[in-house]
Amino acid sequence: MLITTDPRTGTTEETGLEPSTSEQVAAAVAAAVAAHETFSAGSRASRVALLRAIAEVAERQRAPLVTAAARETGLSEARLDGELSRSAFQFRMFAEVVREGAFLEAAIDHAGDTVLGAAPDVRRMLIPVGPVAVFGSSNFPFAFSVLGGDTASAIAAGCPVILKAHSSHLLTSVASFDVLRTAAREAAAPEDTFGMVLGQAAGRSLVQHHGVRAASFTGSLAAARSLQAAIDERADPIPLFCELSSINPLVVTPGAAAARGEAIAQGLCGSVTGSAGQLCTKPGIAFVPTGADGDAVVARLARLFASSTAQTVLNSRIADAFAEISGRLEASGAAEVARGASAPDGGGITAVPTLLQTDAASLGADLAEECFGPLVILARYSTMAEVVDAFHRIPSSLTATLHSEPGEGAELGGLLAAMTATSGRLVFNGYPTGVRVGWAQNHGGPWPATNSQHTSVGATAVRRFQRPIAFKGAPQEALPAELRDDFHAIPRRIDGVLVSPSTP
Amino acid sequence: MLITTDPRTGTTEETGLEPSTSEQVAAAVAAAVAAHETFSAGSRASRVALLRAIAEVAERQRAPLVTAAARETGLSEARLDGELSRSAFQFRMFAEVVREGAFLEAAIDHAGDTVLGAAPDVRRMLIPVGPVAVFGSSNFPFAFSVLGGDTASAIAAGCPVILKAHSSHLLTSVASFDVLRTAAREAAAPEDTFGMVLGQAAGRSLVQHHGVRAASFTGSLAAARSLQAAIDERADPIPLFCELSSINPLVVTPGAAAARGEAIAQGLCGSVTGSAGQLCTKPGIAFVPTGADGDAVVARLARLFASSTAQTVLNSRIADAFAEISGRLEASGAAEVARGASAPDGGGITAVPTLLQTDAASLGADLAEECFGPLVILARYSTMAEVVDAFHRIPSSLTATLHSEPGEGAELGGLLAAMTATSGRLVFNGYPTGVRVGWAQNHGGPWPATNSQHTSVGATAVRRFQRPIAFKGAPQEALPAELRDDFHAIPRRIDGVLVSPSTP
Repeated sequence: MLITTDPRTGTTEETGLEPSTSEQVAAAVAAAVAAHETFSAGSRASRVALLRAIAEVAERQRAPLVTAAARETGLSEARLDGELSRSAFQFRMFAEVVREGAFLEAAIDHAGDTVLGAAPDVRRMLIPVGPVAVFGSSNFPFAFSVLGGDTASAIAAGCPVILKAHSSHLLTSVASFDVLRTAAREAAAPEDTFGMVLGQAAGRSLVQHHGVRAASFTGSLAAARSLQAAIDERADPIPLFCELSSINPLVVTPGAAAARGEAIAQGLCGSVTGSAGQLCTKPGIAFVPTGADGDAVVARLARLFASSTAQTVLNSRIADAFAEISGRLEASGAAEVARGASAPDGGGITAVPTLLQTDAASLGADLAEECFGPLVILARYSTMAEVVDAFHRIPSSLTATLHSEPGEGAELGGLLAAMTATSGRLVFNGYPTGVRVGWAQNHGGPWPATNSQHTSVGATAVRRFQRPIAFKGAPQEALPAELRDDFHAIPRRIDGVLVSPSTP
Repeated sequence: MLITTDPRTGTTEETGLEPSTSEQVAAAVAAAVAAHETFSAGSRASRVALLRAIAEVAERQRAPLVTAAARETGLSEARLDGELSRSAFQFRMFAEVVREGAFLEAAIDHAGDTVLGAAPDVRRMLIPVGPVAVFGSSNFPFAFSVLGGDTASAIAAGCPVILKAHSSHLLTSVASFDVLRTAAREAAAPEDTFGMVLGQAAGRSLVQHHGVRAASFTGSLAAARSLQAAIDERADPIPLFCELSSINPLVVTPGAAAARGEAIAQGLCGSVTGSAGQLCTKPGIAFVPTGADGDAVVARLARLFASSTAQTVLNSRIADAFAEISGRLEASGAAEVARGASAPDGGGITAVPTLLQTDAASLGADLAEECFGPLVILARYSTMAEVVDAFHRIPSSLTATLHSEPGEGAELGGLLAAMTATSGRLVFNGYPTGVRVGWAQNHGGPWPATNSQHTSVGATAVRRFQRPIAFKGAPQEALPAELRDDFHAIPRRIDGVLVSPSTP
């Protein structure tokens, strides 16, 4: 029997759920393969209807979903309420992506004479890859889990989804899965467009099944390596899209420290300790100048951290890793500047906000280990060259943040180039936590932030679950609707020219 | 000392070239990393100029390039002349892709109020990944080698290229590399935008170097696995884009056999034996109906193959593999229908056109092994269901081809769906060999055709060498030109709406 834990108290409860057997995994995949035939043959309008129905049913079930998630994750109801709104927003955004249609990348090269001679009619678009395995994350029980962006983008692509529920919020996952199946019924989509399996062994079995054509995962490097090893055993390896580890460096220039050191200290503390630091974009290293202005930033941060108290974290694995890694960082030379108050006995599963400090010149890979939870290392620097050098010694990230003042451009040297080379998002005079969902968003970055060049947030996340196909000399009736001559409802590239949609 | 071989005679010649040492590989990568700083900072116009210069210099050097390639590959001068034209065309096409600008996928989400609250300004585009390792193929000394589509698309993306020359045409590679360096000088691009290394060990060393950010490879599964293993040893694994193995099934319906059996037999023989069958899209299996019309197609093919003679192939490794695999196919139950005449002694390195036959119902993975060279297996079928079933037993391919007559649609059953599920390009009433280079082309397919969802031919091939980056709250001067407010020269997506370019 699988159990669930309330991290606020540490008490456990039986869920009534059992890990999925390999037969159950195979049955879920077979059902998804069958659903794929119906679902992928449906119109874009049917996908739009399903995506919108999911948003509506999720909002209808808001209260029980938030209550379940609060009990299993220890996250605040306010945060979870906002996260559920974000989930619903994502499904509606992908409905708009599908309706608009450019995501199909439809292109037509008509037959004709070219400098290379007579050329045949060639037409291309993106099609769904087939059933997708989606692994829920621990830290976003809605927006990166069963009701998350991976599910939304796979459905937008036209792919059935088989979820692997995260062990940290099983009952929330079951309730979320019920939202998906209810929405499928309401939108007249095949119910087996959605499947779910439970347990780690089921997850490995899932990605090894021939019927699964792609997988997405948000979590640790070690778990991703295990999944990749399982996939490498397949006769037909499939793509595994991972979001992994990120240290998210933040740089405060001398000008910014002087002009708004107080506000930056408050903002940084909020970004490090929000959701108990359990965000993939939490700043883990902050470069602060030496000298009086930098010292004032550090002093203010020290007061904020010292007056904080232990925060509830998602599960004991995270609490243990936090204790272990923060200890390792101190052993590697990061000095403790301040810590919050520990939790009283019986105070649940917690981590204590921790502020460490080192010199930028000493910052290497050992001090750049991601510590999931409310911890940041301040790296003090005398020259911007030290910061640029340090960027080349630490791993790449999802984000890199710069606080600077107008007119400091010339003093930044190669900093912007170094930030660009080692991250997937540059944040200016703000904080990396809080990711706007939209057409222009990117959530990815060079290894180890992700293992591919794709994003997991934003409109182009759908592309992970599509593949191109071309048609040479096809009769009109053998073409998908969007590639036919009499279709004009989406943007298409015709003989090299981007053509806007038109109504006849 | 590395040697080169004239496959028409089998005679070898010293090239005066040595395998690159690991120090030489490291120096080439360091030079490319330095060139990347200059090249990636350049304008789109500078990339356009370089791509066009390469096309011009290649055409200027046409005669010596074709002569060198004919001697090293045994391919006809006419074929090589056409291939060089195709190479030049590809560079000019990617110049147009860069000039047009949609490949940057520029998107702007302005700051504003949303249903989730106030949202920051977010802007996104694709940037070059950095230096790319390109492995030349054996069978296209120009179009998939030093002057190939991978080089063109990497340069279009803004990435320096380090080539690993194919051992089968070293002198052609050196002459082609000289074209690239000359073009760089003429277009005022850094000469080290192009580097080249020689030898298998150098190739492995190349993909393991931290400065190399992506790699592309066209060749055998075994060689690809060895490169992937080398990449997996990196602290920061990089994407390896492969084009691997493809059996390219072709189906002749009863109607097509009756209406144009003679023409199909001639076209199929030409597609199987053109370039001595050394094309990745060569049809390896052809489904032909039982009965008189199908028998007539087979009889015509038998006469064509029987009257053929041994063909020069690229190298002795290919000749040996052809002999070994064709023997294995016969041992697995494919019966010989016809063979061409063997080469006389001293006739060079050859393969003999071979026509085999089996039943569709017997067709499994053992008879679906790719045999590079002039060989095809005819799979005779009584019902279309046998063909559809067979598609699900054989590996996926780059292409799937259908010869049918109008009105046969209802009799095809699930054939088009099976072809779509197992290939990257559907060819109607034509042949899979001969790949139009254009905006709508796709050259890829599910494993083992490729190991990713990307194409290696056509405009979107550039995307393999780009990665997304987003800017949150960036001041105008910190943005790339294409993301600034005052820029309108390329298609962009602004607040979710695709906006065509305009001149102010």
